[in-house]
Amino acid sequence: MTKSAPLSGQLSFNAQHSPMGAFMSFTCGNFGTRGGIGLQIGQPGDQEVFLGYKDGDRYSDGTLKCLPFYTAAVNRSADAFLVEQAGPAEQNVKPDATPFQEGEFTRSYGWASDVWEADGLRFSVYSPFGAIPDPEKENRRRMREGLLPAVVARLELDNTKGKSTRTAMFALNHARPGSRILEADLGKGRVGFAFRREAGGAAELFDYTKGEKGKKIDAGPFVFMRWSASDGVRKRYNPVHLLGSCPGFGFEVPAGKRYGITIALGSYLEGFQTNGMDGRYLYTRYFKGLADVLRTALDNAGKMVIAAKALDEKLAAAHLSAEQKFLIAHATHSYYGSTQLLEVDKKPFWVVNEGEYCMMNTLDLSVDHVFWELEHNPWVVRNLLDNFVRHYSYKDEVKVYTSEFAPTTETMQMDPSQTPPPPDEAQLKRPYEKKPGGISFCHDMGAHNNFSPQGRSSYELANLTGCFSYMTQEQLCNWVLTAGCYVAKTRDTHWLKGQRHVVEACLESMIHRSGDVGFSQFDSTRCAGGQEITTYDSLDHSLAQTRNNVYIAVKSWASYWALKLMFRELGDGSRQKRCEELAAKVAAVVSDQAVDGVLPAIFEKANPGYASRILPAVEGCMYPLYFVNTGWAGHSLDEVYGSPSERRMFEVLREHTRRLLLDPERRNLFADGGIKLSSTSNNSWMSKISIFMHVTRRVFHLDADPAIAEVFQKADAAHMKWQTEGSSYWACCDQIVSGEGKASRYYPRIITSALWLE
Amino acid sequence: MTKSAPLSGQLSFNAQHSPMGAFMSFTCGNFGTRGGIGLQIGQPGDQEVFLGYKDGDRYSDGTLKCLPFYTAAVNRSADAFLVEQAGPAEQNVKPDATPFQEGEFTRSYGWASDVWEADGLRFSVYSPFGAIPDPEKENRRRMREGLLPAVVARLELDNTKGKSTRTAMFALNHARPGSRILEADLGKGRVGFAFRREAGGAAELFDYTKGEKGKKIDAGPFVFMRWSASDGVRKRYNPVHLLGSCPGFGFEVPAGKRYGITIALGSYLEGFQTNGMDGRYLYTRYFKGLADVLRTALDNAGKMVIAAKALDEKLAAAHLSAEQKFLIAHATHSYYGSTQLLEVDKKPFWVVNEGEYCMMNTLDLSVDHVFWELEHNPWVVRNLLDNFVRHYSYKDEVKVYTSEFAPTTETMQMDPSQTPPPPDEAQLKRPYEKKPGGISFCHDMGAHNNFSPQGRSSYELANLTGCFSYMTQEQLCNWVLTAGCYVAKTRDTHWLKGQRHVVEACLESMIHRSGDVGFSQFDSTRCAGGQEITTYDSLDHSLAQTRNNVYIAVKSWASYWALKLMFRELGDGSRQKRCEELAAKVAAVVSDQAVDGVLPAIFEKANPGYASRILPAVEGCMYPLYFVNTGWAGHSLDEVYGSPSERRMFEVLREHTRRLLLDPERRNLFADGGIKLSSTSNNSWMSKISIFMHVTRRVFHLDADPAIAEVFQKADAAHMKWQTEGSSYWACCDQIVSGEGKASRYYPRIITSALWLE
Repeated sequence: MTKSAPLSGQLSFNAQHSPMGAFMSFTCGNFGTRGGIGLQIGQPGDQEVFLGYKDGDRYSDGTLKCLPFYTAAVNRSADAFLVEQAGPAEQNVKPDATPFQEGEFTRSYGWASDVWEADGLRFSVYSPFGAIPDPEKENRRRMREGLLPAVVARLELDNTKGKSTRTAMFALNHARPGSRILEADLGKGRVGFAFRREAGGAAELFDYTKGEKGKKIDAGPFVFMRWSASDGVRKRYNPVHLLGSCPGFGFEVPAGKRYGITIALGSYLEGFQTNGMDGRYLYTRYFKGLADVLRTALDNAGKMVIAAKALDEKLAAAHLSAEQKFLIAHATHSYYGSTQLLEVDKKPFWVVNEGEYCMMNTLDLSVDHVFWELEHNPWVVRNLLDNFVRHYSYKDEVKVYTSEFAPTTETMQMDPSQTPPPPDEAQLKRPYEKKPGGISFCHDMGAHNNFSPQGRSSYELANLTGCFSYMTQEQLCNWVLTAGCYVAKTRDTHWLKGQRHVVEACLESMIHRSGDVGFSQFDSTRCAGGQEITTYDSLDHSLAQTRNNVYIAVKSWASYWALKLMFRELGDGSRQKRCEELAAKVAAVVSDQAVDGVLPAIFEKANPGYASRILPAVEGCMYPLYFVNTGWAGHSLDEVYGSPSERRMFEVLREHTRRLLLDPERRNLFADGGIKLSSTSNNSWMSKISIFMHVTRRVFHLDADPAIAEVFQKADAAHMKWQTEGSSYWACCDQIVSGEGKASRYYPRIITSALWLE
Repeated sequence: MTKSAPLSGQLSFNAQHSPMGAFMSFTCGNFGTRGGIGLQIGQPGDQEVFLGYKDGDRYSDGTLKCLPFYTAAVNRSADAFLVEQAGPAEQNVKPDATPFQEGEFTRSYGWASDVWEADGLRFSVYSPFGAIPDPEKENRRRMREGLLPAVVARLELDNTKGKSTRTAMFALNHARPGSRILEADLGKGRVGFAFRREAGGAAELFDYTKGEKGKKIDAGPFVFMRWSASDGVRKRYNPVHLLGSCPGFGFEVPAGKRYGITIALGSYLEGFQTNGMDGRYLYTRYFKGLADVLRTALDNAGKMVIAAKALDEKLAAAHLSAEQKFLIAHATHSYYGSTQLLEVDKKPFWVVNEGEYCMMNTLDLSVDHVFWELEHNPWVVRNLLDNFVRHYSYKDEVKVYTSEFAPTTETMQMDPSQTPPPPDEAQLKRPYEKKPGGISFCHDMGAHNNFSPQGRSSYELANLTGCFSYMTQEQLCNWVLTAGCYVAKTRDTHWLKGQRHVVEACLESMIHRSGDVGFSQFDSTRCAGGQEITTYDSLDHSLAQTRNNVYIAVKSWASYWALKLMFRELGDGSRQKRCEELAAKVAAVVSDQAVDGVLPAIFEKANPGYASRILPAVEGCMYPLYFVNTGWAGHSLDEVYGSPSERRMFEVLREHTRRLLLDPERRNLFADGGIKLSSTSNNSWMSKISIFMHVTRRVFHLDADPAIAEVFQKADAAHMKWQTEGSSYWACCDQIVSGEGKASRYYPRIITSALWLE
């Protein structure tokens, strides 16, 4: 069996362990900080995770030796912690565990697992994933399996060589009050605890002395709840105090034995959880409550572990470097932590929350998640497309400016942890005429469980020229490309026919925004005085402005390809032809912009972005590749670049990429070798780097050049460190400023790295 | 009209403003800390409250001048705050309000109001209270009025002498994400905001230029939501950003005008909120949701303000000192903040949460709340008594010790913020025989919305000799006394007859615990090796041990009085007589313990508590006083002390109290003049001091002695400072260690001070 190899770099980083669609994570791994079970939040939970063993039986005075997942394990916030957890008259209880030191343990991180080993102790968390079942098609059993809002873990202690009993334990010390013992019947020999009505754990005990299969020990583990893990384990008379903050499980392992507990960690949020539209978790249709969830998770644990190991094995077997595999695994863990499958008006409603920001179904993320989702559960993509049309589409006009304009502010390096610059006054005052626009889609559907009013995002504001402005053109492309990918993968022409009017409106809207060149020339009137921006919202001028932006131009080209193929399916030859012409036109204009083999980021000489060199210029090439690979295009990738202008654009983009990657001044690389998306900004997005690398390999085959292969290899190593060192508390992090996760943390979007598996 | 006078001491202290039974507080008043709306928590909320005005219209660049209810108003935690509130790319927005300085504003604190005035600005919060309506008797309209989970506030700005427009605003800056604009229809000219589904505010605008009555301005206030109050007020284009953390209301006041907004601040928690027993808020029967609550609060605001002012007036008119009135007002505010009226199994379920600890219906608090509750809504007391019988009673045996015992640890000064001492090993090892015990009641019904398993409290543990041990004897007295008071007030003999078996069992249980002397001699077997304690759980030996404790002895005497009168109602002459004899016997034994005119706290010479002098010795005298005053006893107080032994006990207790209060060494007073309940401990409970003072005045009339009247007067002043200075963040605080609120904070129990109004 191909197992995930132990990690060799920094082991202290958080991983999210999440079921599918429950907006829940069990998070641990970063030393000395809180984590545990977090629900509906864009950051790790508020529990200390105590995990370890001591010599002697449970009542012995031995000191617990624990993995360093509690605050006092790192000499830093212990004092604050003590004040925080203070309870009635038990306030100054000192955590009396000793942490394992680095070097005393290993960590193996798989696609669906995370395994820590130290001195006979083994802790593994499993979060298998797969197809999220479609409630309109699947039976109850499959729905319960697929939507089970729980992960499973195993804590094993090998005492086969020991001379006396050892005691192992797992506990969560909560910062908020409300822990309790779960009194419900969980099955024979099983015990449980909970936090109020919303989350909890359950465990059962096995003897693994004679092998991995294990033999159930009916006596089961013991459950405790005091103000500290060590107290709970040791107290002979009152192991459970209902006022305690730290519930947990323990078990004694006699000399000569290897015992382990299987732990289910789950959640259950009943009733409406969202506003604007009343949404409850779809899993509440299939589970009666928390006890049902935890019982089921223990019942299914064996299957879940096997499924997780199979996934680990699959990733381990991929022809990728260790760093690449790590990034894919890490991205997958965080992706599922942001997923939320609701039921609104008795219909399923798919939401991916935007990491730390918790914006709901941010469309410029959705378009990146689409490859993964179509691989696993295409129906959620259809659900998303429909919900955007039904609730979060709008019609605008466009602003045709009647004066020339050059930005008054200089290209600037923006740190997303700093206040964005004020709007560009020159732009705000620029006169314009209104012309017809058309359909587009909101940036998102709301934030933090608050659906925004219909036709409006939580993010976008008028009269801005940078961050928080409208992304009308880009979101139009995003819906078109997502729809194209959906049809490419599923060939669901029934759905496409139902959306014919939308697809037609999208083409019209693209054209209205495009002037003579075929891609974004005007801003939406929704901006009022402001201007549209791109998804790279805190980058510099090279990617802020939508108009005449090379990234948007190529993405528009790809959108015409998607539209063309959809009109082909719809039998609309005339519009198919129109799209073909527009694609060719855009390609010609883009190609014409190259200077010395390189494309400017903004095709406006007076714009500071004109001097910027950006790698996302090629991002749009991803989509035709997908249309070809799925067989939908019906021809090879060569034919995508079959027209003279498209062939020319291909060459220009390839050369642009080659030059940027091999730039002797290394303007598109960070000092550590990581990829710098714009030559003029220290902001980089890992999710976008992943797409860029994929296109570079699979469209342009530039990695055949050993020099570029080496650049990529070094970049992968740097990218892994961005996660494990630069952003260790925040699990998978997208937006990196010079190697440090400054924004877009705890983020789903890096799932684009799974493209590398193709 | 008698108005509450402005306070003259420290103005910086938190007040809870709470509806009845909603476990909700709008808390503000302490400078530089967070507060706002807090739900189901034992501490202030997590919002900064911005309240103030600026010169100019809303778009002007004037700086907001605010009351100091936000963190940066006190130069302390501003840095931490900035990191905490950081949102997408708007992180370093500095709060740009200037706080009013002390001396620039006044505060008047009434029974149901809190009014701040500064330079034409006036902010008043109103929390009228009254009878909580009984759902079995009252109609829907009354239920909606009584259970409305909201308070109302008014923010007025007097610009009658101004030369130009001024702009006033109210905003709540949330630490947690999830703020939103309330889009629901609230009525003409009304706007609202909310926090997720659970809480929110609504406002409407009035012109008060021509008088207090006000004339509605249909245009209404404006609503905003940005990352700071000042931004929200000032932004011309995007006053609402759905990602903002700080929603609020504002209004412009033209020169020559006085305008004001009425603000409703309410909550709505739907679905089951408790575990163990599934409980939802009873108000959900009568309100459809948050918008319904806020709309109704604005509709009723006029009546609510009138009701609040009438209550203010009533307290202001009482023949009490300003300090006494303050304590009663402060206690009432906090009492309602802890109240929670649920519906379990379609029946109402009354809960008072224990302040910061959130233990549910702690019975040794309930017995103190009973005077207030019987005055306002006796049915909740019946509800409580029934629920204790049904769910939280138990039967035990008692331990008859077979060896003598003296505590091994010395009398010690215990600080409740420190770990309690370990159990007394000598006690744990003491041999005993089991004898029949009987019925008693749990310390509480659970904690933090988690009902504990039937027959078990969240607090009590076995094998302890101090804090967290069982209170079996005391809780038995508490149920009996509560039942006695309920019958005394209501003469509900129908109920009493239904509880005949319980009342009989209580007498039997009292007798089984009492040996030859008639009061607590044995500990419950529930203690295992431990011993029972009293409600004074973190005091020293003088009040820790239940056996042979003067406080428990006199409380037992009172319990026999309650039982005697209940058996009289039940026509059980034989048991009535038995109770009479037992009361006389206890009185004789107590009287015999006096040495030099003073009673030892513990009637055991080897016990360190023997040397302690405690004022709560007289607490039990409260109940016969109540039975007399309600007319239930059917005779005067003199006849209570009619038997020779009871007359003797009266004299002994009076002399004991007199000597302690006038002790030249001032061992029962703190340096500041506050009352020290035990001569050997610095722990004092304000709720118990209130009862003690009441008994001293109304039973013993010792305040007729000018020396004692002076002691009390100085004590009242000290007690007020304990609240306003020593415990200012924690609103009303019960357990004071040398003038500082160290435990039992944010507490309901001080409502006993309302006895002074009699």
